[in-house]
Formats: sequence, structure tokens, C-alpha cells
Amino acid sequence: KRTGFPEVVFCEGKPDAFLPKIFQHLVVADGRALGTRASEHQAGLVREVLPQASYDPVSRILSVAPEVPVSLVGHVAVVCAGTADTPVAEEAARVAEFFGSRVTRHYDVGVAGLHRLLDQMDREDGIRGANCVVAVAGMEGALASVVGGLVSVPVIAVPTSVGYGASFNGMAALLSMLNSCANGVATVNIDNGFGAAYLATQINRLAVGGSAS
Amino acid sequence: KRTGFPEVVFCEGKPDAFLPKIFQHLVVADGRALGTRASEHQAGLVREVLPQASYDPVSRILSVAPEVPVSLVGHVAVVCAGTADTPVAEEAARVAEFFGSRVTRHYDVGVAGLHRLLDQMDREDGIRGANCVVAVAGMEGALASVVGGLVSVPVIAVPTSVGYGASFNGMAALLSMLNSCANGVATVNIDNGFGAAYLATQINRLAVGGSAS
Amino acid sequence: KRTGFPEVVFCEGKPDAFLPKIFQHLVVADGRALGTRASEHQAGLVREVLPQASYDPVSRILSVAPEVPVSLVGHVAVVCAGTADTPVAEEAARVAEFFGSRVTRHYDVGVAGLHRLLDQMDREDGIRGANCVVAVAGMEGALASVVGGLVSVPVIAVPTSVGYGASFNGMAALLSMLNSCANGVATVNIDNGFGAAYLATQINRLAVGGSAS
Amino acid sequence: KRTGFPEVVFCEGKPDAFLPKIFQHLVVADGRALGTRASEHQAGLVREVLPQASYDPVSRILSVAPEVPVSLVGHVAVVCAGTADTPVAEEAARVAEFFGSRVTRHYDVGVAGLHRLLDQMDREDGIRGANCVVAVAGMEGALASVVGGLVSVPVIAVPTSVGYGASFNGMAALLSMLNSCANGVATVNIDNGFGAAYLATQINRLAVGGSAS
Amino acid sequence: KRTGFPEVVFCEGKPDAFLPKIFQHLVVADGRALGTRASEHQAGLVREVLPQASYDPVSRILSVAPEVPVSLVGHVAVVCAGTADTPVAEEAARVAEFFGSRVTRHYDVGVAGLHRLLDQMDREDGIRGANCVVAVAGMEGALASVVGGLVSVPVIAVPTSVGYGASFNGMAALLSMLNSCANGVATVNIDNGFGAAYLATQINRLAVGGSAS
Amino acid sequence: KRTGFPEVVFCEGKPDAFLPKIFQHLVVADGRALGTRASEHQAGLVREVLPQASYDPVSRILSVAPEVPVSLVGHVAVVCAGTADTPVAEEAARVAEFFGSRVTRHYDVGVAGLHRLLDQMDREDGIRGANCVVAVAGMEGALASVVGGLVSVPVIAVPTSVGYGASFNGMAALLSMLNSCANGVATVNIDNGFGAAYLATQINRLAVGGSAS
Amino acid sequence: KRTGFPEVVFCEGKPDAFLPKIFQHLVVADGRALGTRASEHQAGLVREVLPQASYDPVSRILSVAPEVPVSLVGHVAVVCAGTADTPVAEEAARVAEFFGSRVTRHYDVGVAGLHRLLDQMDREDGIRGANCVVAVAGMEGALASVVGGLVSVPVIAVPTSVGYGASFNGMAALLSMLNSCANGVATVNIDNGFGAAYLATQINRLAVGGSAS
Amino acid sequence: KRTGFPEVVFCEGKPDAFLPKIFQHLVVADGRALGTRASEHQAGLVREVLPQASYDPVSRILSVAPEVPVSLVGHVAVVCAGTADTPVAEEAARVAEFFGSRVTRHYDVGVAGLHRLLDQMDREDGIRGANCVVAVAGMEGALASVVGGLVSVPVIAVPTSVGYGASFNGMAALLSMLNSCANGVATVNIDNGFGAAYLATQINRLAVGGSAS
Ligand SMILES: Nc1ncnc2c1ncn2[C@@H]1O[C@H](COP(=O)(O)O)[C@@H](O)[C@H]1O
Ligand SMILES: Nc1ncnc2c1ncn2[C@@H]1O[C@H](COP(=O)(O)O)[C@@H](O)[C@H]1O
Ligand SMILES: Nc1ncnc2c1ncn2[C@@H]1O[C@H](COP(=O)(O)O)[C@@H](O)[C@H]1O
Ligand SMILES: Nc1ncnc2c1ncn2[C@@H]1O[C@H](COP(=O)(O)O)[C@@H](O)[C@H]1O
Ligand SMILES: [Mg+2]
Ligand SMILES: [Mg+2]
Ligand SMILES: [Mg+2]
Ligand SMILES: [Mg+2]
Ligand SMILES: [Mg+2]
Ligand SMILES: [Mg+2]
Ligand SMILES: [Mg+2]
Ligand SMILES: [Mg+2]
Repeated sequence: KRTGFPEVVFCEGKPDAFLPKIFQHLVVADGRALGTRASEHQAGLVREVLPQASYDPVSRILSVAPEVPVSLVGHVAVVCAGTADTPVAEEAARVAEFFGSRVTRHYDVGVAGLHRLLDQMDREDGIRGANCVVAVAGMEGALASVVGGLVSVPVIAVPTSVGYGASFNGMAALLSMLNSCANGVATVNIDNGFGAAYLATQINRLAVGGSAS
Repeated sequence: KRTGFPEVVFCEGKPDAFLPKIFQHLVVADGRALGTRASEHQAGLVREVLPQASYDPVSRILSVAPEVPVSLVGHVAVVCAGTADTPVAEEAARVAEFFGSRVTRHYDVGVAGLHRLLDQMDREDGIRGANCVVAVAGMEGALASVVGGLVSVPVIAVPTSVGYGASFNGMAALLSMLNSCANGVATVNIDNGFGAAYLATQINRLAVGGSAS
Repeated sequence: KRTGFPEVVFCEGKPDAFLPKIFQHLVVADGRALGTRASEHQAGLVREVLPQASYDPVSRILSVAPEVPVSLVGHVAVVCAGTADTPVAEEAARVAEFFGSRVTRHYDVGVAGLHRLLDQMDREDGIRGANCVVAVAGMEGALASVVGGLVSVPVIAVPTSVGYGASFNGMAALLSMLNSCANGVATVNIDNGFGAAYLATQINRLAVGGSAS
Repeated sequence: KRTGFPEVVFCEGKPDAFLPKIFQHLVVADGRALGTRASEHQAGLVREVLPQASYDPVSRILSVAPEVPVSLVGHVAVVCAGTADTPVAEEAARVAEFFGSRVTRHYDVGVAGLHRLLDQMDREDGIRGANCVVAVAGMEGALASVVGGLVSVPVIAVPTSVGYGASFNGMAALLSMLNSCANGVATVNIDNGFGAAYLATQINRLAVGGSAS
Repeated sequence: KRTGFPEVVFCEGKPDAFLPKIFQHLVVADGRALGTRASEHQAGLVREVLPQASYDPVSRILSVAPEVPVSLVGHVAVVCAGTADTPVAEEAARVAEFFGSRVTRHYDVGVAGLHRLLDQMDREDGIRGANCVVAVAGMEGALASVVGGLVSVPVIAVPTSVGYGASFNGMAALLSMLNSCANGVATVNIDNGFGAAYLATQINRLAVGGSAS
Repeated sequence: KRTGFPEVVFCEGKPDAFLPKIFQHLVVADGRALGTRASEHQAGLVREVLPQASYDPVSRILSVAPEVPVSLVGHVAVVCAGTADTPVAEEAARVAEFFGSRVTRHYDVGVAGLHRLLDQMDREDGIRGANCVVAVAGMEGALASVVGGLVSVPVIAVPTSVGYGASFNGMAALLSMLNSCANGVATVNIDNGFGAAYLATQINRLAVGGSAS
Repeated sequence: KRTGFPEVVFCEGKPDAFLPKIFQHLVVADGRALGTRASEHQAGLVREVLPQASYDPVSRILSVAPEVPVSLVGHVAVVCAGTADTPVAEEAARVAEFFGSRVTRHYDVGVAGLHRLLDQMDREDGIRGANCVVAVAGMEGALASVVGGLVSVPVIAVPTSVGYGASFNGMAALLSMLNSCANGVATVNIDNGFGAAYLATQINRLAVGGSAS
Repeated sequence: KRTGFPEVVFCEGKPDAFLPKIFQHLVVADGRALGTRASEHQAGLVREVLPQASYDPVSRILSVAPEVPVSLVGHVAVVCAGTADTPVAEEAARVAEFFGSRVTRHYDVGVAGLHRLLDQMDREDGIRGANCVVAVAGMEGALASVVGGLVSVPVIAVPTSVGYGASFNGMAALLSMLNSCANGVATVNIDNGFGAAYLATQINRLAVGGSAS
């Protein structure tokens, strides 16, 4: 809380015995809780002690919402290339919302069909209005460069492990994003939707006039 | 000649003593000659025996044109992302012309400024009219995917070694192109403008109704 | 359809709930449908709603043929090195046929037994008559270079993940193909039979005198 | 200018004939100009036509300042690990200032001497007060994680090619930064001080209440 | 025994038929036995013949303690970054104790929360008092550098495979540790808690005045 | 001599002061001497003290022949793909002759022109008659597999650093050779003509009925 | 048979329906058959049709011995570093015997206990008497270099995938063997006991005075 | 000095203007100074201001000895594989002596000639008597494992960049050492003789009964 961000649980690999306790502890302290990379099985364990917990199998996010919903501020746009990138994009979107950012989603707008992306730019609540864009893509990750060329706010690029063969589990997209020819693109780890949401929220908070934390 | 393609000399690393002889031999046999990756120094050596040889320091192509110019057929579009990719693009363009393809050049149309690329699509002699597109790009190589999404003819992608750091001398662009989310993109070796021109000419010849060779 | 190619479904990883719907939708719209990388399980799901769907466990292709068969044009030769490469070769062959190309198959003609490959060159419907060759090989991928040296039409090289140890899941074959000493070889992603078929069809269509799309 | 950022010239590899013209063109249009990765030799060429140009051999920045200095806003902290990282840090600092950000420098504060870094946190104009931190480090790049743990604003991590052996020209630092255990760290390409400055300025502008561009 | 170290069994992959016999053999010869990387299943097999064997599922250590406990000498500090690194840290700690070193544990003191690490330095039985420090960390492995900068005894760095994406199964941490900017840091293989314990014990024994073996 | 092989000097990097002495020492002891990877400059130094030394700039071999020529036995065939591979092939050939093997050379028989290779198989002193074949190739290294499929004696494959881009200084050829689909192929280090000659001689000696040494 | 070697079946991945037929076919043609990398399950399938087939779960070799045992000639020594390397060593040994070579086994003689290896050198039927040595090792693969320094016959080095972490599935051993400082060492693919046996037999046959095939 | 170690200057890349000042500063403060990786040119610059400075071109160490020689304690053995590894070994030896350790040198004892290494074990001032061994090797780096198996004190392994081709500038030796099958081996960065000397001195000091610093 010192950082101004509620703690988020990284569920993957956490022993069965601990996870429900961690969630209970957070809910008692904070009135809410959120875990990333949770399995269906882990969701079941937590729901035994916290029946109000909800689980989204796409993003693998397991959460207990606060009783009074947090009001969302500013604007973070989450953009992703293919439907297979949705889990990571949705992790980013839900975490950013948990952190209090207003999020717009622009999914399946990969560069092989450029018009779909361009359609999302200037419409109401379009990408152009965001304080920060999270660009999620696997395979060759070209989306980050194209988006970076279209907007003038920071783009947080998230390579995903979507692809096969020479995608080398996301390395192709990662290298692509690190070498983006567009200005204003920074990169986080492969599949790290959480990390992108954290940064996007820091930037969004600065933009709406508060502090980053 | 059996292949229907005049021989092209790979000049890099050829000993000084041999290069002029190879060129003389080709000019005698064929009335013309072309070498790739030639240095200024090698150009000088060849011009001592073949004063009509011309050298282009950008593409590093050293050539002796035939007395009666070859007529160029069909349409190959050579597209490149940044000015630093010009040497490879120009190698591709000149080799394709040497092989008898009509070439249009569309340079410095990287995806960070999408409008420049879109402007080149449907204008007179635009990219859209080509039988084959050669897409040349370094850094993250996103150009190949974007072009691949815009045209329905084969795209021969040429990654270049332009970039620094995590471009790893063209590997980022290479992996990017191999993982292109657009259909109809095949890749050749890093900086291999020659190889792309060879393939583009084979395709262009098939399209204009002759055989590939 | 704008591209002149029917849509192809990438089945791997698609949720059970969506796949049958996607197939139904395509069959309604187009009278036929084809999916790559489908599992036996997915085939079952689709056959519940489309009993006429047929599944090939080797190529993992799941398809609904049109009532009136499409007539096949031109000539694409699909060549593969070992029997273990057959799944990828067969994916290429079936996709190319779905796209309307006439295909000849030349399987298990790896370079360790050169005569088998040479036998396939000039026989009736041999490799030599093709407008485009798809060369599929794992391990060291030498087939692409040898075929590239024998034909003068474009060779689309498909590295496969067949092999072990230092084949690094297809990387040895991929690098081999990118560095081919034969002219007229371009490469697609590891195991990407689909992508090769797409390109081969574009080239084949240009050669038979239509447009690529 | 459309982006709200003056154009910056990437000097490395630019032909001698072009560079002075590019600078003259920018000075005429904009009253000022800045180039990164310029050599001593290139500085000489530009100074022949623009004697007021100044060159910093450490950051390799070549610039023509505007007659009326731009007033600097907000606060970007540039932090670097060792003296060998200074060139990249100074590229970041000078570019950020050229873009109008107020910059504080905190150099040679690598994690092997933690107290030097801690001393820079809360002093006047210390790291803690920044809207964005640029963390520059080679070798193992641990500085980004430690700084990321100490501040709650975005950290833009810049791996440098400083090191030898298993640093693999900056790859060790790059991987380290991508895997940072601290929240709020995003990474740009190896040695890309320019890119970090661009992002830091976008964030700093948002924080001081303007738009990012 | 020639080396002054009891033999330790590497259980992973040992056939079911052999493991109990190896343990029985060691217990007969030496009055005790210890195996690393044992599975729950293997523990069961061994306990059928040696019911006194105890198994720790976290460190995966399976051991038969001597009847008269060995007295522990000197001081080895085992430090780890995150809770996910505990298995490797605990392997190191238990092996070092089996070899006769007195061990203090300092877990979950990753550099994103520097105060937790600093708290462990000078307290009673703190890190500062050790003859050798074993520093265990995954992700970016920055802990080794920070600890190396704080202590003046040898630091044995153990990268772990904890992390995802660009951690490449521990390679990021490994490279980080090999490039540590702090003096007095040497590295062992990824997840090799055993190897670190061996070295730490050699050093600890030399420090307490005996021979290393 | 214990090994039955005269010592061979690895000249690269040897200090100027030492090299002539080493050669003198060997000539005194053995009546002859041979060095690999010698520079023109080093040849000059050695010829100052041993004027009879001869230097071959292609293979970079510097040698002092014995007064009475060694009679050569058996048959080692050295095969190479392109003219650029000649230096490595010639290093292998000359070293094998120095070790007493009769060598036949079959150069520039890369697989892109299969007939040239096949022509060399069964002619007088053709490849087929050898006790061991040394196959030297850069780029994609396919020669080793094709030769391996044609002969039934051991093939020692030597990848060379010839190529560019994704040849990664010989790694593509190296991986290719390690994954050869032909039986009876073993690989030595990139550009290691010497090592191949050593092995080929061991095998050749065994075949002619002596011992390997 | 043209090669003088009976065909060997690579069982891994062969479909259930085919394997028994392949074995039956070979037994009919040749009176015997051998398959590598066979699973327990595959052994069962083959034994249904060929009850005399025997399966060795360690080497995963499935074989039908000829009625009259083949007499074994010459001497191939198979050496391995650790017990975990036994499967690969045993694959090499059994295949070499199937090919008619007399084999001696020297297992678990890794360089960490040098005396065990030295003990095996000159004893009766020791390593020193072999015509060819197959050296099998994982982890750091140092065995090949040490053996190479001790014998003067060819050493065929087989890296294994034994190890963890930075062994990268055999790559550490592979690189180690390719860079061996001992003369007379050539390398085959990771875990390729079969390939080593093939080469060793070729060499052994040449040494006993026959042809390699 | 807080660490008990005199500061050592890393000369490589230090600007000409700074180096003499740094040396002067250290000599004034400490009566002595030592720099690693110094060039001949840098030695000249320093000797202009400190004529008593001595330079060793092999190890590239530039030093000013104290007037009263430091007395050397304990025993560190520095072992190296080939003469080409001498620069790194000698850097380690001289730095260890500068830090006050008594050093014995055992050079050119690579594993291809095992007897040379074994000869150095138990002779007077042999390797066996050391408190710590520094093992320096390039190529396949097997020396570290063999030495690790022979001694029971810590071995600090230093991979060197000696080698070519698949040594990948020291990576083969590095991976080899990290995967050592011998116990008690830890690794430092490629060519980091300095780092090994630092650790060896810490261990040596602990062994002679003082503190590590
Ligand atoms: N830039 C290039 N990259 C790759 N291959 C080339 C290039 N230029 C020429 N070639 C090929 O190299 C062959 C000539 O090689 P060489 O005999 O060494 O001159 C030509 O027939 C082409 O196949
Ligand atoms: N050091 C740098 N690293 C990466 N990009 C840069 C750098 N300096 C300038 N740039 C970018 O390169 C563009 C200019 O490239 P160019 O047209 O080649 O001069 C600028 O608009 C910046 O986007
Ligand atoms: N373990 C093995 N590793 C590599 N190649 C093998 C192995 N076992 C058999 N082979 C080779 O594979 C060929 C048979 O392959 P297949 O036709 O797929 O059974 C044999 O003739 C051998 O050349
Ligand atoms: N050869 C070397 N390799 C690695 N680190 C070194 C080397 N020589 C000196 N150092 C370290 O570098 C520090 C000095 O760095 P600098 O301040 O850049 O001179 C010393 O205190 C040592 O910790
Ligand atoms: Mg932008
Ligand atoms: Mg397309
Ligand atoms: Mg061809
Ligand atoms: Mg932070
Ligand atoms: Mg320290
Ligand atoms: Mg063969
Ligand atoms: Mg030997
Ligand atoms: Mg030891």
C-alpha cells in the first residue's frame, strides 16, 4: 500500500495450502483481492473460503471485488493483435481496472488487417484518446510499431508467447518490440500483462494529475 | 544460362587477381556482367580492364551493361522501411532489372509513418500493381507484415542488418518476418537483396506468361 | 474472400465452444471449410454439427468439401525428405488443393538417397513440370538446396521440427534453408505447411495466367 | 512536429555528403537541431556550415541550441551504474533536455555500493522527486530492479553494452531488466538512451499537465 | 569419503529398483544418507526399507539422519530473493547442514524490497557474520550483486529457473550473476543448490581452521 | 611423436618472438615442420631463419618440407562446396599430406550443381575410392549430407564460416552437419580443416593396415 | 544392404499400425531386425507378431536376433561418463554389435574420478586396444577430451542430454566436444548413440582389413 | 579499503585524460596501484607521470609496486590449459599477489596431456597444497572438471575466449564449467582473471585464519 498499489497475487505455482489464506488475508486487510495466472483448480480452492470470488478463465484472473466499486479514472487503451492474445490483453485490462484506471479494449486488430486497427483510432473512446496504450501481440509483434507510429502517448508493448516454430515462445515478438522503429515504445516481459498494467496505471495517474502511486 | 538467368558475381572476398578476369570472361561470353557486394577498390580493378563498367556505391553493384539495353517486363515492387535499408533494396532492384524485370521503387516507407506507405499503394505504378513485392526492412522488420496484409501477390521479405543492440545484426527482423501474421510472405537471408530479386524475377516471369527461367 | 482465398481456420488452441460454430459459419457462407492443426477431439466436435466433415489424422486437416468439387489448375509439387515430414507436407498439399492448385506429391526423397529424388524429376507429372515447388524437410534440411539446384521455378522451403538434439526443434533446418546455396529458395516458418501452400498457390495462379488472388 | 517532438538525427552511418544538409535544413525550419551517435568527424563537417554547433564527445551528441533557450519543465531523473555507462546516460539526459524536460543526473551509483544510490534518493532534487526515472546500466543491469523497488514512478530501463564475456554486448543487462522483480520497470533497446529520453519526456509532460506530445 | 564429504544421491531419474538399495548401502556404511531432487514417490520407496527416512517436499531432500547428530560449525548464510526460490535455497541449506556447516536462513529478501535485506545484515546471526554467503535468485538475479556489494566474504550465486518468458528458465539470472558488478561473486549452475552448499562448506571449513575436506 | 603424428603449430596469435624459434626447434628435431593459420607476416619472420620454408596464402599453411619426401599412402578425398571454402579444404588436404595420407581434391562441387559432384564420384581417383572423405562446406552445409549418402566410408564434415547473415559465422553449417540425415557423418569445429585431416589420417592409416598413430 | 549395413528402424514417433509391419518385413528379408528409441508399448506391439523380439528398456533397443549369431570382429570401445549416460552408451554398443563389431563397455568413468578411467586403459580388453572409441557424456562432456588425449585412434564423441540448467539439453556437452583440445575427436548429434556406432563400425571394419561397408 | 582490498583499475576504455590521474591518486593514497586490461599505449601515458610503473604485456597488467613489498600468505594455485590462456592466468596470478596471496603457477597443463597436469599435483608447492585453485581454460574448458576431481579445495573456474568457431568466444568453456561433473567448482565471467583472484584471495585469507577482507 506504501506504493499506492494494492498487492496482486502471482498464483502460478503457489502451494494449495497457502493460496486461500493469502486471499483471506488480503480481503480482511483491504476489502478486495486479485490474483493473476490462477488455475481453475486454484479458483475452486479460494471460493471454498471466499464464495464471492470470481474467476475469469480467459485471463486466468481470480478476484474479490470491493463492496463499493472503485471509480475508474483517466484512460488506458489495451490493444491486441489476435484472438489468441486475448488472455494477456485481458490480464492487462483487468489489472489496470483493479488499479483504478478506466480501460478501453481494442482486440483482434493485428496489422494483417490494418483497417480494423485504423477504425479503432479516432472513434468515440478510441485509442487516440488514451493517456497510455498497452499493445499486446505475439508472432512478429508488429502491432507495437504500428500503434507507436499512430499515437503520441507512451506505448507499453507486451510480447506474447503466441505462435510456433521460429516465434521461439515469444522471443520473436520481444525482439521486434525492443527494436521498434516507432518512438515512444517500451517493452515488458513476454506474457506480462500485469507488468504493463502497472506501468500504464502509473502513467495514467500522472496524467490525470495525481501522483503515480 | 541453363537456368535462364545470367550469372551474377558475388564480389565480397574475391581475390584481386581474379575479379577482373571473371568480369572479362562474362562480358566476352554474354555482352554484360553484374557483381554484388563489390568494394570501391574492386570497382577500380575491374574498370582498369573494362572502362565501361559502372559502380553504384550505395548498392555496391558493379556492372557492365549490354550495348542494346534489355527490355524490362512485368512489375516487381521494391519497398524499404528506412533510408538505411536502401543499399539492400537497391541491390534487389538493380539485380531484378539486370534479370529483365521492370521495377518500381518505394523507399523509406517504414510503418512508423503509415501514411507514406499507404500513399504508395494505389497511385500510378503503385505497389498494388506488382506481380511480386520485395519488402526490405531492418530493426523490427514490421514492414513485411503490413505490406503482406495489403497486397495479395507474393511478398519476398528481406531482413537487413540495420539496427543496433537487440537487433542482433538482423536476427530480430529475420524472426519477425518468419513469424509474419500476414499470408503470402516468404523470407530470404539477412541482407540478401540478390536472392529476393532472383525469386521476384522467377515469379514475375511466370506472371507475364513466360517460364520462370 | 477479398484476397481471393477462402479463410482457413487455425484450430490449435481454439476453445471447444467456438470451433463448431466457426465451421458452421464458414460452411453456410462458403459451402466449404478447412482447418489446420486440428486434433482428433476437435474433429469429433465439428462432426457433431457437420457430419460430412472429414478428418485426416496425418496432416491434422479437418475439412468440409464443397458439393461440386473445385477444379484444380496449374501444378504445385510438394516434396518431402522423410516419412516423418509427411504431416507438414500433407498439410501443404491439402491446403494448396483447397485453394485450387493441382498438386503432385513426392515424399520420402531425402538427400541421403539421391536417386529417389532424381527419379521424381522428369517422370510424368514430375517435379520439373511444376510452377512452384514446396520443399519440406527437418533435420538438416538439405533437400531445399538440392531441389533448388535442380529446378528453375521458385522453391518455398518449409523447415520441420523433425529431428532431435541439435536440430533444436527445427532451427537447424530453418538456418540451413535460409542459407541455401541454390538460387530461388525462400523460407517460411518451421512446420508452416499452410503458409507454403498459400504462397505456392499465389505463384501457381500467376503462372496459369490469372491474378494471384 | 506533428508529434510535438522536434526531429532528432540518427547520425551513425549517415553519408558525409548528407549530414550537414540535414542539420542546415532543421536549423532553418526549427531554429535548432540535435543529432545522436555523431562522430568527431561528423561534428567537424557540420561545424563547417554551422559554426555554432556544439559537440559532446562523451554522449556523442551534436547540437545547435536555439537562440532563446527552451524552458525546462517537470523532473526526469537519469541514473547510471558505472562511469562506463555515462555516454548512454548522457545521451538520455541531453535528449530529454532538448525535448524540454528538466533533468537531474545521478551517475556512478551502481548497486555494488548501495549507499551511493541511497544517498541520491531523498536529497534536494533527488531521484524520489522525479516524474520518471531513466535507469542506465550494463553488466548485470541490477540497478533497474533496485531503483524500481525504491520509486513509485515509471522506470525506463536502458541496458548498455558495457561489460565483456558473458555480458554478450548488453544481452545480460537486457534480460535482467526484462525480468525485473520490481514493479513499474519497462525496457528499451541496448544503448538506446534516445528512446528512453523520448518516453521519459512523454511521461513527464503528462505529469506536468500537458499532453504527451 | 576420501574427499571428506559424505556421498549425496542425485535422485532425479534414478530407476525405482535402485534407489532404496543405494540408500540402504549408504546407511549401512555411513550411518546416514541424503538424496537431492527426490520425488514424493521415491521417498515412499525408500521409506519402505528405511522407515526412519524423512522427506521435505519443498527442498525435495530425502534423508536419513545419523543417530548422534553431527555438530555444526562456522557460519554459512543462505539468502534467497522470493518465496518461489525457497526450494533451491532450502536444498542448499540442508545439504550444507548435512556436510556439517552451521546455516542461517534469510529468505524472501529480494531487492525490490531492499529494507528486508538490509534488516538481515547486522542483526544477531545476520548475513554479515557468515564465512560464506549462498545467494539464490531467479528472474533477474540482482540479489547476488547487491549481497556481493554488502559483504566481504565469498558469495556463491545460484540462479534459479523461477520466472517466465525472457527468464529463459534461469538464463537471465545466470548471465546476471556471471556479470555481477560486485566483487567476490562466483556462480554455479541453475537450480544447483547442492553445488553451492558444497563450495560453501569447503570455504566454511577452511575458515574455521580445518581443511576444506 | 608418441602419437605417431608430427607436431603441428597453430600460428594464429603466437607472439612474433616465439614463432621462428618453434619452427627451428621442430626442424632440428624432426627435419620438417608445419604451421596452420599463419599470416603473411609470420611467414616472413620464419623465412628469415628458415629460408626454405614455403607459405601458401590460400590455406595459410607455412611449412618446411623434409629433404626426402614422405611417401603418401591410402586415399583421403577432400571435397568442398564453393571456391570460398577452398582455404579450409586446402588446410585439410595439406595437413593430411603432411601426415602421410595420399589426398585427392574435389573442389567447388556444391549441391546447387549436383552433376559436378556426381562427376567426381566414380572417375579415376574419384571420391568413391577413398578410405575417408573430408567434406568442407559453409552456408547451409548440405554437401556433407549428400556426400554421406553417396559413400560408405566415414565422412568427416567441416563446417566453414563462409556465408553471411543467418549463417551466423558457420553455425548454420555446423548444425546442418550435426543433423545429417545420411549415416556415417561426424563433425569437427567450424573451419577446423586441421582436425578433419587428423581424423582422416587416423582412419586412412587403419585402412591401409597400420595402426592409427 | 547396398551400404553393407542392415537397416535400423528409428521407432520414435512411428505410428502403431506401421511398426510391427516394418519389423516383419525386415525379419523376412534379412532374418533379423533392430529398432532404436522404441517404447515399452511399441515393444509389446512388435512382440505380438514377432514373439522372439527382445526389448532392452535401458537402451530402448528392440531387436530380433538372427538364428545363427553374427560373429563379431575387431574392437570398438564404448566409454561413458555417468550412469545416466548408460542408455545412450548402450544404444551405441548394441547397434555396433548388430553391425558386427566386437564391443567392450567402460561405463561410469567420468573425469571427476580420473583413476576409474585410467584403470580401464591398459587392462585386458582395455580402451587402449580399440580401433575406435565411442565417448558418451552429458553435463560438461569433458570425457571426450580426456579420452582423446589418451588414445591415438579416432574418438567419436556423443554428447548426451543428461544434466540440467545450463546444460541446455546437451548443448554444453556438444559445444565442449566440438572444441576438444585433444586431437582425433569428431562429434555426432546429442544422444545419437546410433550414429556413433555406425561410424565406429565403418572405422573398425576398415581396420580389420575389410571395406567400410 | 573498507573491503580490505586495494582498489584495482579496469583500464579498458578509460579515456586517456583520466587514467594517469587515477593512478597518481591511488599511489598518493595507498603507495601502490594496479590496473587490469591496460594497453601498451595506456602504460606509456601512466609512465609519463609515474616512471616507476611497470607493465606486463602478457597479462596487460600495469602496476606501481609499494616501496616495501607486501608479504604474501597462504597458497593459491593458478592452473591453465594452454599457452594461449596465459594472459588470463597471469592476470589472476598477479592480482592475487597484489592482494597479498602467495601464488604458484601451473601453466600449459591441458587435459589432452594428462600427465603434465598430474605431475603438478603433489610435487613441492604443487596444486594439492593450495587453499584455493584458479583453473583457467578456453576451448572446451575440461581442465576445471579434471582439477575439480583431483582437489578438495574450492576451484574457481575461469573460462577464456581462447578458441574459434563453436567456442563462441568462450561460451563453450563457460557452459562446460557451469556443468562441471566435479564437486567444488564455481565459475566467473569469461576472461575474468581479476574476479577469480579476488575470490581466491578471500578464500585464502579465511584459510590462513584472518578475515576474508
Ligand atoms: N549478394 C549475394 N548474396 C547471395 N548470393 C549471391 C549474391 N550475389 C551472387 N550470389 C550467388 O553467388 C553465385 C556466384 O558466386 P561466386 O561463384 O562465388 O561468384 C551467383 O550465381 C549467385 O548464385
Ligand atoms: N540514438 C538513437 N537511437 C534510436 N533512435 C534514434 C536515435 N537517435 C534518433 N533516433 C530516431 O531516429 C529518427 C531519425 O532517423 P533518421 O531519419 O535515420 O535520422 C528520429 O526521429 C528518432 O526517431
Ligand atoms: N537413434 C537414431 N538416431 C538417428 N538416426 C537413426 C537412429 N536410428 C535409426 N536411424 C536412422 O534412421 C533410418 C531409418 O529411419 P526410418 O526410415 O524413419 O526408420 C535408419 O536407416 C538410420 O539411418
Ligand atoms: N579485469 C577486470 N574484470 C572485471 N572487473 C575488474 C577488472 N579489473 C578491475 N575490476 C573491477 O573494476 C573496479 C574498478 O572499475 P573502474 O572504477 O571502472 O576502474 C575495481 O574495483 C574492480 O572491482
Ligand atoms: Mg509514438
Ligand atoms: Mg498478402
Ligand atoms: Mg533454383
Ligand atoms: Mg517501482
Ligand atoms: Mg563482496
Ligand atoms: Mg554414408
Ligand atoms: Mg587422440
Ligand atoms: Mg573437488
